[in-house]
Amino acid sequence: MITLSPGKTIGILGGGQLGRMTALAAAALGYKTHIYCADDTEPALQVTPLRSIAAYDDKAALRRFAAAVDVVTFEWENLPIEALETIEATGQLVCPAAQVLKIAQDRILEKNFARSHGLGTAEFSAVNDVADLKAAIEKIGYPAMLKTTRMGYDGKGQVRLLPGSDLQQAWQDIGGVPAILEAFVDFSCEVSVIVARRADGLTATYPPMRNVHRDQILAESHYPSGLPDNIAREAQTMATILADKLQVVGLLAVEMFVLKTPNAAGQNVLMNEIAPRPHNSGHWTMDACACSQFEQLVRAICGLPLGVTAAHSHAVMYNLLGAAADQWQEWLGKPNACLHLYGKPEARAGRKMGHVTVLTEEA
Amino acid sequence: MITLSPGKTIGILGGGQLGRMTALAAAALGYKTHIYCADDTEPALQVTPLRSIAAYDDKAALRRFAAAVDVVTFEWENLPIEALETIEATGQLVCPAAQVLKIAQDRILEKNFARSHGLGTAEFSAVNDVADLKAAIEKIGYPAMLKTTRMGYDGKGQVRLLPGSDLQQAWQDIGGVPAILEAFVDFSCEVSVIVARRADGLTATYPPMRNVHRDQILAESHYPSGLPDNIAREAQTMATILADKLQVVGLLAVEMFVLKTPNAAGQNVLMNEIAPRPHNSGHWTMDACACSQFEQLVRAICGLPLGVTAAHSHAVMYNLLGAAADQWQEWLGKPNACLHLYGKPEARAGRKMGHVTVLTEEA
Repeated sequence: MITLSPGKTIGILGGGQLGRMTALAAAALGYKTHIYCADDTEPALQVTPLRSIAAYDDKAALRRFAAAVDVVTFEWENLPIEALETIEATGQLVCPAAQVLKIAQDRILEKNFARSHGLGTAEFSAVNDVADLKAAIEKIGYPAMLKTTRMGYDGKGQVRLLPGSDLQQAWQDIGGVPAILEAFVDFSCEVSVIVARRADGLTATYPPMRNVHRDQILAESHYPSGLPDNIAREAQTMATILADKLQVVGLLAVEMFVLKTPNAAGQNVLMNEIAPRPHNSGHWTMDACACSQFEQLVRAICGLPLGVTAAHSHAVMYNLLGAAADQWQEWLGKPNACLHLYGKPEARAGRKMGHVTVLTEEA
Repeated sequence: MITLSPGKTIGILGGGQLGRMTALAAAALGYKTHIYCADDTEPALQVTPLRSIAAYDDKAALRRFAAAVDVVTFEWENLPIEALETIEATGQLVCPAAQVLKIAQDRILEKNFARSHGLGTAEFSAVNDVADLKAAIEKIGYPAMLKTTRMGYDGKGQVRLLPGSDLQQAWQDIGGVPAILEAFVDFSCEVSVIVARRADGLTATYPPMRNVHRDQILAESHYPSGLPDNIAREAQTMATILADKLQVVGLLAVEMFVLKTPNAAGQNVLMNEIAPRPHNSGHWTMDACACSQFEQLVRAICGLPLGVTAAHSHAVMYNLLGAAADQWQEWLGKPNACLHLYGKPEARAGRKMGHVTVLTEEA
């Protein structure tokens, strides 16, 4: 395992808030950060002078970026895989590797991967046309979710199907692209676990967060999750197995459903989706843990000792979406509310403008 | 009082670690930072793309800087006052004001200021030549400290005088510049208090830190300080009075001596020196408080609600001076040690390369 010392430069593909917060954590440890993104208004560009503004398919720019940095990571999941492969082909280390992102980008690949390692997922079926969709409904039944296989986030590219739904319309609504029909899961709650893994296989796993979504976008994350110990352990084990089997170097966030009753295989937790990067549900670690998920990412990809994942405080993280960020001054006035704003100029509806972590009591 | 919203640009004079950590805290709240410094290798330049590289007496550059930002603060105490005055003359707000820095830069002015408000200091006498020095020794006695009035930090420009010391030599050693002879204070410990003050007079005061110096450079800061409650309150009151009477907008750090027994005026605490900026002894707040001194500075100068100053953990801050920073990997391996490195390329002896805060137990 290579160790990159403070003073080295971390390259980040993507210029959003996750890159911004990674860059801030990297700076605290003495690292420089170089942001590669397509648009010079991206928020991560406000926190480092080192940048490449170029398209994600500009191979020459990608190679120059690879040569200018000491390791590459990414903060955006919908990157073209070819961008990572172009960098890997130069001999530069990409953490996590292109192969990991390839699986995480595809709802069918990630579910098959989980199942191949004995982990539970919702029932699902691949859908490539309306005939497939009809057959999938026959097999899976209602209610069900039709989702694009790729490029989905925050509920985009999803349609819920109920008895009587117009399947032709649903297929058009998601754009007629390769899709997946997922059985409705009767869950008691949604949780997520973030695990860090180093190249030598060492892992560190944060406690599960209980997540509340509104309009299919994460609204709140709660620590502690309130899960019984055995289920919390099952969730952490699932995340650790996935990180290990995927050979992630960096972070893996795993979103899961907690079942009301165990399924036939005795599983209480089903994998919903994975993201090989810092995750919105891990933002609370910035304020309630000695080592945040962003610092942990830096530690993992630089081959440093991983940080402890215990919390010093209980916490609730609230996303500030769109105009909700206008309440920044009220949040600043609340004791133990830790405000984070992302420097985005325009508060479009549903846009993640910032978040606030309220430290509720000592852990 | 003007409120500057997130998205505005904070100008910082000085490019050292205090500016760097202020910029990181400003970014977390969604502010941009513009660094003005004389040298393009300064560490604060690594965390923002906005910069002016120019001499501190370049009035045209200072005016351009003033016009490019929404408020100005400073992180370096030995700035020429004329730099701040040049900016103030443009109508731009400097926080704290030039007048505050003028007093803080001069050991005689700051002691006279404290005394004029009923606060205790060591006995002292101004020294402008060897004859003055002899007269001052007659008055104050041995042991005593001869210090340059201005431009001193981390023990630079100081000589300790004992019976038999060569006064001519001492005068030469400090460079034959305007100086102060200070009586030796028989203190039980050295403490410091950081207070934030807004333009409308609201203040928020951190608890006192107990500081340990080695070779006249801060080595460790401890929270809690172990001071009896009445003395802790006396220290906090002193800092608050000074911030208020100086009309500081921003932060004021006050270094103090705690006497072994109260003096004739009933004082347990004497002011040693003040610094109207973030202070090394406040770095622990980054990891042990919901609102760090750096975030508090941003809140104060932007007219935001001030943060709570209570600690969620006990903490010891260790400075990493020179080669001590080479132990970064050992520190990263310790649970609850929060490492901060400043991105300085060259670890000269005694140079502040970083610090580490060890969270010891819950407060």
